[in-house]
Formats: sequence, structure tokens, C-alpha cells
Amino acid sequence: MHILIIGAAGMVGRKLTSALISAGQVGGKSIDKLTLADVVAPDAPEGFAGSVDTVAADLSSPGTAEQLIAGRPDLIFHLAAIVSGEAEADFEKGYRINFDGTRYLLEAIRQAGAGEAYVPRLIFTSSIAVFGAPFPEAIGDEFFNTPLTSYGTQKAICELLLNDYSRKGFVDGIGIRLPTITVRPGKPNLAASGFFSNILREPLSGKEAVLPVSKDVRHWFASPRAAIGFLLHAAEMDSSKLGWRRTISAPGLSATVGEEIEALRRVAGDEIVALIKEVPDPTIIGIVDGWPRNFDTQRAAALGFRAESSMDEIIRIHIEDELDGKIGG
Amino acid sequence: MHILIIGAAGMVGRKLTSALISAGQVGGKSIDKLTLADVVAPDAPEGFAGSVDTVAADLSSPGTAEQLIAGRPDLIFHLAAIVSGEAEADFEKGYRINFDGTRYLLEAIRQAGAGEAYVPRLIFTSSIAVFGAPFPEAIGDEFFNTPLTSYGTQKAICELLLNDYSRKGFVDGIGIRLPTITVRPGKPNLAASGFFSNILREPLSGKEAVLPVSKDVRHWFASPRAAIGFLLHAAEMDSSKLGWRRTISAPGLSATVGEEIEALRRVAGDEIVALIKEVPDPTIIGIVDGWPRNFDTQRAAALGFRAESSMDEIIRIHIEDELDGKIGG
Repeated sequence: MHILIIGAAGMVGRKLTSALISAGQVGGKSIDKLTLADVVAPDAPEGFAGSVDTVAADLSSPGTAEQLIAGRPDLIFHLAAIVSGEAEADFEKGYRINFDGTRYLLEAIRQAGAGEAYVPRLIFTSSIAVFGAPFPEAIGDEFFNTPLTSYGTQKAICELLLNDYSRKGFVDGIGIRLPTITVRPGKPNLAASGFFSNILREPLSGKEAVLPVSKDVRHWFASPRAAIGFLLHAAEMDSSKLGWRRTISAPGLSATVGEEIEALRRVAGDEIVALIKEVPDPTIIGIVDGWPRNFDTQRAAALGFRAESSMDEIIRIHIEDELDGKIGG
Repeated sequence: MHILIIGAAGMVGRKLTSALISAGQVGGKSIDKLTLADVVAPDAPEGFAGSVDTVAADLSSPGTAEQLIAGRPDLIFHLAAIVSGEAEADFEKGYRINFDGTRYLLEAIRQAGAGEAYVPRLIFTSSIAVFGAPFPEAIGDEFFNTPLTSYGTQKAICELLLNDYSRKGFVDGIGIRLPTITVRPGKPNLAASGFFSNILREPLSGKEAVLPVSKDVRHWFASPRAAIGFLLHAAEMDSSKLGWRRTISAPGLSATVGEEIEALRRVAGDEIVALIKEVPDPTIIGIVDGWPRNFDTQRAAALGFRAESSMDEIIRIHIEDELDGKIGG
């Protein structure tokens, strides 16, 4: 089978590429071609026996989506987006990339299918930012979407399009609202949620990290490993079980910043925790205040999605997968 | 004040124009200019002392929205849409008119406001079609949007945009999810919901009407008079009470088709009811099966929106407002 990953150069895209190559197959069908696209051409992955195309492509440019699906990929992962902080700061860029890009992709698939039978599976990474305060302590599977950021609005709109294009038979779409991926490897990015990872990742590498919010802040987490698991499960599952409600809130772990810090202390000790500096940032505090804290993801559980059950486990996964087992840099 | 009505030639648009002219003011500010736009130029209304522009304008043509707001209307009613049946049959037209048109309008307002202070109130007519089965017997104010038609999807997307543009301070938007307007005057249109009115209106004028669904079908109704009341209330209310949840489900009456018919019998007699012919239509049955039946509109009630409490009252309003009190044609 031929798999297209849009947003392949990002953290999730690279881990997903590696996981697909390791598995060699999806749902029993062997992977013989990978097309890896991003705004800068992704590096060609190692250890893959099939053919690989790496493509520099901006999905928000008209015509790009048509080029990306010209090879009729059977399975498409659409991970490309600009993050919440950037979409909030640059209104036009956010709508162009996070919304128009997705619409172009759906339209290209629909129009390709008008001339021949073509209904690929499309896995779309949505976000818990589709929810906005006030909400119940744990958000259920039928709670409404009232995003308080442009990013969340763009994701919610894409979810609606994914449903409608799937219902009309143009695509076999599945949306996954990812929890905040923690511990996110690499450097800090512009996401307002970055500190949730920074306060674990930086100290674990012996560096200082800034905590811009109160320790009481509660949030919803899953490891990168769990996130890749959601995407692979979505690629293989029986999508008819979703009906026309094509996006699900993925499972995760609800924890406070204080609980993150105490887990870090248990796993790595007081000296590591001492690297976290509290520097309140009113902008970040304001954004995070409108974010979800906890979910009741019965639907995802029934559909076979699994995540971590403790922050200690999330931290240990980071130490295993990113630090070769070594703490302190 | 200057009021722009987009979709002014439609049933709601014409009744709204009349109501505004009768009132002469909105929220204590006298109306000195009306701009009435639709795909065909609306008739100039009678009895208005101020200035009137009637404009033939297709909001889905790029550039049209900018022309419509060039006169900087203080209050905009955006009622223009193609109906559910047409949007389902013509996918591209539905998205172009029901979605792109609204987005162009919001963008034109945002860009006008970039050069000078301009934040008009924008009243948008949404629909209960943003909800899709399965749902609870009465849909509450926090139930999620899972439309089962492209029309419902387009309305739900516009609601999200209205929220985000309001939150960013570009517009003072209020969305109203209208119940199915009954008794809708005039000729049958392409709306799949048309029969709910046809089975009352046609017999009341001495004509036969087709009932394409079972009498058990339950639905959600308000009179044209109530709908105009919602729009006028939205124009005058304190929008800050909405927070960033800018669309509300309007109040209405939950009744079955059988209850419609029994009310018709009480108001107009057996001979009138005998004009209803049952001719099941599987397409209509399929569409209607995914529609809401009842709502719990506490939020709208708290915000001062009011509707009818009996089908008899809804039928009597039609006889008063459309038939000069005469039954049977």
C-alpha cells in the first residue's frame, strides 16, 4: 500500500514514519510506498525497503493537494498545522494553513474520486482545543465545541468537513483529538502548551525550564508513543463503527502541573526538579485558562484506543525513547 | 441607523423588513437607511420614510461582500442561504453559497475594521440542522453538533466562524438556530422540511397537500412571527451576555405531524384535514429521520427569546397574518 504523510517533518510525523517502517504493514497490507510531505522536504527515512518520495509542499497553496494525491495514496495522515500560539497571533495564516489547506485536500480527494473509484482513508489530527471553558470537570463524548482560540476553531471546522465528506462517500475520514503530547521532544516551539513538556524535558536534560502558570493548572496528556499508537489504530480500525461522528477524543491522563512535578521528583529527584523556575506569564495563563482539564473518553476506549495511566509512565517513556535511559544530560 | 439585510427577498427577509419599518427603530435608535440585498433585487418596501437601496447581489461572488458593507451598516442581518434539499443535491453550490458567502462577509467586515473602527452587529440565521441523530429526546444547550446534511454542516461551520470573529473583536455576531418555520407562507420550496408547512397551509387555502412521512414524526416549530421576534430581539439584546458562545438554539414548540393535523382539525375542521394525502417518500423520510425532535432551550429563555406554546396558536397566526382571517381559500 501507498501511504502519504502530510506534515511528515514534524515530531509526530517523524515518529509515525519510523513506526510505519518498523511495522512494515498496516492492517495486514504491506507498505510498498511512502510519500512524505512537509513545507520543507522531510529527510528520507532509513531502513525502508519500499520506495520513498520526500516532497516540499505547502498544502495551503492551491494545486498542491492535487499533486500530493496524484499517486492515489491508499492511506493519508494529515498532521500539518501551525500551532495555537502562531494561529492566534497571525489570524490569516492560521485560517490559510489550518483550514484552507485541509479543505483543499478534501476537495482534491473528492474531485479525484469523481473520475474513478478513489476513497482513501484520511487520518486527521484534531485537538482538544476544539473545547473551551466553561466545561464540566470531565468532558464527555457529546459535549459541544466552543473553541476559545482560532486554532481550536480551525480544527473544529475541519472536523465538520471531515464528517461531511465522509458521509457523502468522498473519503474515509477519521479525526483524532490528541491530548497535549508530553513529553514533547526537541526544542520549545510556539505552542502555548509548550511549557507542559518543557518543565519535564529540559530538567531531564540538565537544563532550566520556565513554568509560566500555577501548579494548580490541570491538563490532559498523552506520550508521543501513545499518540503514534492512536494514529496506527485509526489507520487499521473498522471505520464503520464511527457512524457519521468521525472524530473522537483520544484517551489520555488528567494531571496538574504540580502532579507533573511530583512525578518528575519521583523519577529523577530533587535536583532535577530544582531546575524549574516559576515565571508567571499572563498571556499563557489567559490562554490555558480556557483549556480542558479532563475527559471521559468512553467512546475511544470502546473503540480500542489506549493511553498511559500515570505521569511517571509518561516520563519514563521519554527517558527510554529520547534519552537512551540517561537523566541529567 | 443603517441596516443591511442579506437575503431580503426571502420570506423571513420580507417579514423582517416590514417589521423593522413598522418599528421605525432598533434599540431606541431610529432607522434612517435600509439596504436590501438578495440574488434578485428585492422590491422596495412601502411606508418607509428613510432611504432604501435595493441591490441584486450574490454574496458568494468575491468582492460582493465588500460592496455590501461599503456603506458601513450598523446592523446586518445575514439570512441568505440555499435550503437543505438543494445543498444536499448540489454539494459545490451548497458550500459556495452557505459557507463561502458567509466567510466573505466576515472577512469583508474584518478588513473594513482594520482601517477604521467598524464592528457592526451581525445577526446570522443558523438552523437546528446542525444537530444529527442519535440525540436525547430534548437537546440541551451544550449538546454537540453532528449534522447529517451538508446544509447543517455549512451552518455549523458558520457558527464557529461567527464565534471566532466575534471573540477577536472583528464583529458583534449573534447566531440564531431557527426552529422549522411553520406555517411557512407562499409556495412549496425545495427544503426537505417543506411538508411540515404544506400540510397546514395548502388545506387552509382549500388545496390538497402531500404528507410524505409518518404521523409519528416529531419536530420543532415556530411561527414566522416568532422568528421575526427572535431576530429583532437579537438585534437589541446585550450581546455581552452571550460570552463567546455566540449562537443560541431559539425556543420553539415540539409537536408530531399527528398533533399538527389534530390542531388543524380543531381550528379548521374535518373537511380541511381531508385535503392531506399520505404519500410516503423514502428520501424525505431518510432525511427527516436524522433531525431533532425537541429542545430544552433554557439559555434562550433566560436571554428573553419567546415562541408559541401550542400548534393551534401557530395555525391561528397563519390565518391572521396570511389569510385575512379566512379559511378554505
